[in-house]
Amino acid sequence: MKHLCTVSPLCDYLRAARQAGKRIGFVPTMGAIHEGHRSLIRAARANCDEVVVSIFVNPTQFAPGEDYEAYPRPLEADLAACQAEGVDVVFCPGTDEMYPPGSATSVSVTGLTEALCGAHRSGHFVGVTTVVAKLFNIVQPDVAYFGQKDAQQAIVIQRMTRDLRWPIEIVVCPTVREADGLALSSRNRYLTAQQRKQATCLSTTLNWAKDQIEAGQHDTAALLAEMQRKIEVAGPCTIDYIEIVDAANLAPQPSAEGPCLIALAVRIGKSRLIDNLLVDATPTNR
Amino acid sequence: MKHLCTVSPLCDYLRAARQAGKRIGFVPTMGAIHEGHRSLIRAARANCDEVVVSIFVNPTQFAPGEDYEAYPRPLEADLAACQAEGVDVVFCPGTDEMYPPGSATSVSVTGLTEALCGAHRSGHFVGVTTVVAKLFNIVQPDVAYFGQKDAQQAIVIQRMTRDLRWPIEIVVCPTVREADGLALSSRNRYLTAQQRKQATCLSTTLNWAKDQIEAGQHDTAALLAEMQRKIEVAGPCTIDYIEIVDAANLAPQPSAEGPCLIALAVRIGKSRLIDNLLVDATPTNR
Repeated sequence: MKHLCTVSPLCDYLRAARQAGKRIGFVPTMGAIHEGHRSLIRAARANCDEVVVSIFVNPTQFAPGEDYEAYPRPLEADLAACQAEGVDVVFCPGTDEMYPPGSATSVSVTGLTEALCGAHRSGHFVGVTTVVAKLFNIVQPDVAYFGQKDAQQAIVIQRMTRDLRWPIEIVVCPTVREADGLALSSRNRYLTAQQRKQATCLSTTLNWAKDQIEAGQHDTAALLAEMQRKIEVAGPCTIDYIEIVDAANLAPQPSAEGPCLIALAVRIGKSRLIDNLLVDATPTNR
Repeated sequence: MKHLCTVSPLCDYLRAARQAGKRIGFVPTMGAIHEGHRSLIRAARANCDEVVVSIFVNPTQFAPGEDYEAYPRPLEADLAACQAEGVDVVFCPGTDEMYPPGSATSVSVTGLTEALCGAHRSGHFVGVTTVVAKLFNIVQPDVAYFGQKDAQQAIVIQRMTRDLRWPIEIVVCPTVREADGLALSSRNRYLTAQQRKQATCLSTTLNWAKDQIEAGQHDTAALLAEMQRKIEVAGPCTIDYIEIVDAANLAPQPSAEGPCLIALAVRIGKSRLIDNLLVDATPTNR
């Protein structure tokens, strides 16, 4: 496995791979690699000749006051995980490599980025789309892998890729969960034992809402009120949002109809946790 | 010569060229091809195996009230010019091909786009960088050619390409001029015979300023005042700007030092004309 920290040797290596007709799969990460990332890497490994993983804690996607400094950076363990999954190249650029002095260019997606996390994390999605644009141009993959856990990010990246015409297939892989339902996240490690137990309320509440919608309940306001109650009784927390939106364009759904995304963001202790479920609210006997 | 209007066959053709190891040169234009464009095409032809010219009057780079509708679209003559210059592929997409419904992504470069034309053409450079980003991803050229006539555009594209890490060489070719000095522009055709004669004041004034700087005059304010006077006495016009700026970052130069760009934009009749000269204001005996 190659471990590269600068763009130039990575581009040389990938140019040769491309000229040899190899299919390049790319998994961009911020490190702190867990089973969620590993499921993306396995999907790439199963479908591509060359698997490239990037590890870069991207400063521009953290809003002021967020956990950029505290974000975990367990590089040795990350490299071991990549090695174990059969990754070909790990790219770990420094901040100056991705944002050299004088950097002035950004990529933004309007509309989709204003809902959900975009409304609570100022500048977050411009940071994400800008760094992914750079990584796409550096790696030039045939296919790139993102997790459904970050549902809004996946939709934004898909739109950006289509709009700016990158010839890259975007694959979105299912959320990986702990046995008790908690979605894997690098931020779970900030939780105390008690907060960790409390945090299961996110997935249980999402599953409750999904069951309700599938049973014919389409009144979003009633669903959201009960979801809020369930999360608040589970323990001390701050709810950033709980929403039921159109799964394609993230527009609010006053009455849940067709493919919907049930999504939430809740702060428990030092962690801001997000989770979501897709549900088809189309009545089955219509 | 191929004449393609949709992305898919163009990508297929260029993928094969790329796999055959061909060097791809790209000249993006808005059509109304004149000797300036032809000089770019010749540079591409001399240095590349495949020469791709795009013709697309990009609506997003025209500010409200500008000449988007009136902009000349002499397609047959343009195709003949491309054919005569040995172009391999002309790509003439429709607006829906470049901006399909739901397009929401833009690329912007801060700082550099706020001076000069950016201060007078609201949204112009976001339109330019966004459409060039799309075209770069569609064509994936090894080298792309731009004209020094649009000096600010060339600097903005260079910065965008570097920042977002496209593996594309940007070549900036010299301004092509009529015998009397007028820079070639698709907008020269809006001029009446009298306005055409008046318009030579742009290049003569730029040359006067260049001579002054090379003779040791570094007082920008004095130079700009005399330049303004020279242009105003030539005939009725509206001056958008006359500026002497740092050639690399477009910052105003109260005292002309080092590599400078002398740039101006003047409205004569229905035409908004721009022109510029590079000058090295470094004292020779320092």
